[in-house]
Amino acid sequence: MSRLLRHQSAPALPAVDDLHDPALAAALQHRIDRKTVPHGALGRLAALALRLGMILGTTEPRLVAPQLVVFAADHGIAARGVSAYPSDVTWQMVGNFLAGGAAVSVLARQHGIAQTVVDCGVRHDFESAPGLISHKIAPGTADMSAGPAMTAAQCAQAIANGIDIVKRLPGNALLLGEMGIGNTSPASCLAARLGGIDVGEVTGAGTGLDAAGIARKTAVLREALAANASATEPLDALAALGGFEIATMVGSVLQAAAERRVIVVDGFIASSAVLVAARLSPHVLQRCVFAHRSDERGHARLLQMLAAEPLLDMGLRVGEGSGAVLAWPLLESACRILNEMASFESAGVSDKG
Amino acid sequence: MSRLLRHQSAPALPAVDDLHDPALAAALQHRIDRKTVPHGALGRLAALALRLGMILGTTEPRLVAPQLVVFAADHGIAARGVSAYPSDVTWQMVGNFLAGGAAVSVLARQHGIAQTVVDCGVRHDFESAPGLISHKIAPGTADMSAGPAMTAAQCAQAIANGIDIVKRLPGNALLLGEMGIGNTSPASCLAARLGGIDVGEVTGAGTGLDAAGIARKTAVLREALAANASATEPLDALAALGGFEIATMVGSVLQAAAERRVIVVDGFIASSAVLVAARLSPHVLQRCVFAHRSDERGHARLLQMLAAEPLLDMGLRVGEGSGAVLAWPLLESACRILNEMASFESAGVSDKG
Repeated sequence: MSRLLRHQSAPALPAVDDLHDPALAAALQHRIDRKTVPHGALGRLAALALRLGMILGTTEPRLVAPQLVVFAADHGIAARGVSAYPSDVTWQMVGNFLAGGAAVSVLARQHGIAQTVVDCGVRHDFESAPGLISHKIAPGTADMSAGPAMTAAQCAQAIANGIDIVKRLPGNALLLGEMGIGNTSPASCLAARLGGIDVGEVTGAGTGLDAAGIARKTAVLREALAANASATEPLDALAALGGFEIATMVGSVLQAAAERRVIVVDGFIASSAVLVAARLSPHVLQRCVFAHRSDERGHARLLQMLAAEPLLDMGLRVGEGSGAVLAWPLLESACRILNEMASFESAGVSDKG
Repeated sequence: MSRLLRHQSAPALPAVDDLHDPALAAALQHRIDRKTVPHGALGRLAALALRLGMILGTTEPRLVAPQLVVFAADHGIAARGVSAYPSDVTWQMVGNFLAGGAAVSVLARQHGIAQTVVDCGVRHDFESAPGLISHKIAPGTADMSAGPAMTAAQCAQAIANGIDIVKRLPGNALLLGEMGIGNTSPASCLAARLGGIDVGEVTGAGTGLDAAGIARKTAVLREALAANASATEPLDALAALGGFEIATMVGSVLQAAAERRVIVVDGFIASSAVLVAARLSPHVLQRCVFAHRSDERGHARLLQMLAAEPLLDMGLRVGEGSGAVLAWPLLESACRILNEMASFESAGVSDKG
């Protein structure tokens, strides 16, 4: 990719400020410390409350109209047999989301979270439907084992789409979901390239490969990395080794961070998008709540790169945003602890002697 | 304690049947396996769904009118300086529960869980109040470092009270909560005595002792175990080394298990009551969902004794039932996954090739 081409197609990225505000942090910590529990007893619920307060810029954070966005796309690399399921499952699952029958749809309904599905590049023509947004770049990426998955222009367009999606969403919290047969492959490649580690460390079973399947997948991903050896900068890597749903998600993450929305990060794919976004704009990570540790092999390593300690560890490898939605009540709990719990003073409870 | 006295005061314990039902287990597993996620991808959410189905005896489990019971009492051993907080905090916190300002009260309100506080033996005279039940055995146990914490008759009465409490509760799920300054001490002694391990392995900071405080507490607990060396059977140990809230909770656990209610186990104290109940009636454990791993030192070891893998691990050491209530939405999610999620067949999604 020439410097000229990259310049022409470079997306305009939203500015993400540093949340550095020691006075607010101290006020939040004081509020937590006066709650009627032994000092420090709220553990990571207190840390979560602190983070939500910092993101939303208040000692009384309230989560409003949470939005789950399921970014969907297909992947050229799937033709190389890197997934246990056929690519048609991507569009079939889009139908399942819209019908409310997918895991994440059931969980979102439980918690009153609005669900939007975005066709970022699914290999299928959808009829328009409530809850489905079309931002299709192309019907699937190119096979990245033979060259870049997308052009720089396509990548820039996907990022712009992601920015636009969030600008139109109500509320102050974004839950990241995704669907795309084959999409653990770009996530693994992005983690390997941007993390500077061997792709074997972050390549796993995806939807259910056996050991031989994982070995074949790893070999294909090594081809992809070799075919795109010059793509080392975040945007170049995203175009060469990413997916349309991942690139769109990167745009949404950047915009949500710029607007100081709470970003609830799901599993391996969503974390790979956050990794790219954080390389473009490090303060993005201040806005993130990592929901769960996926059972997908590379996720623990990717979380380590992001210095993230997720809330849940339940052995899920569903994707879709299911882990993000499953963890959602914990965010609500953290806010309620701040806003509704009594202090030692207000409750007339004796503090530690 | 003489055999005669024990016989006279032996409580009538509810019978807890084995849930062994291979046909139901297979039907539940089949239902889970046909859901539109990669096989096995639901991880521990699937295991939870299976357990809830087995407890409630159906492939379509539904949780109805969940009940949080906060068992409160004081402890003679507290006079030996085993807690960082004064005993008065027990009754003060009862007021905080009733006013809705305690951590667990806030969380219960979030999830629509009814809260009942039981005075099992608090050193305070309460006026009657909505949501408060009086089953006071005495204003605190005797100092167990000098002899039994309670008589066999008191212990039997507390168990009977616990049975009675659950018989009157609506719904099909019981969340275990407790409050009692000093109550990590009986929990540690029960774990040590019934688990056959050194009490030092299960003695921790409680509400916030420093290292010297923990050393002093451990020495006092060794005195208690020595002073009650003959109390090795579960009921004897409960009377000698327990607390009124723990003994009442044991009765409630046994009754809830006999009625096939879902028992949501909180932290260290609640787990110690479940340990006693399981020694009296092993099938109790089939009805339990362990909600979280407390940061209190002995809890991990106690969970190990119970072969329990809790849902959450958030570093909390609040007690009150806070962990149980925090985990509650995960139980709801597991039921909804079973009841509302599409199957590959119903959604027209291709299964693994």
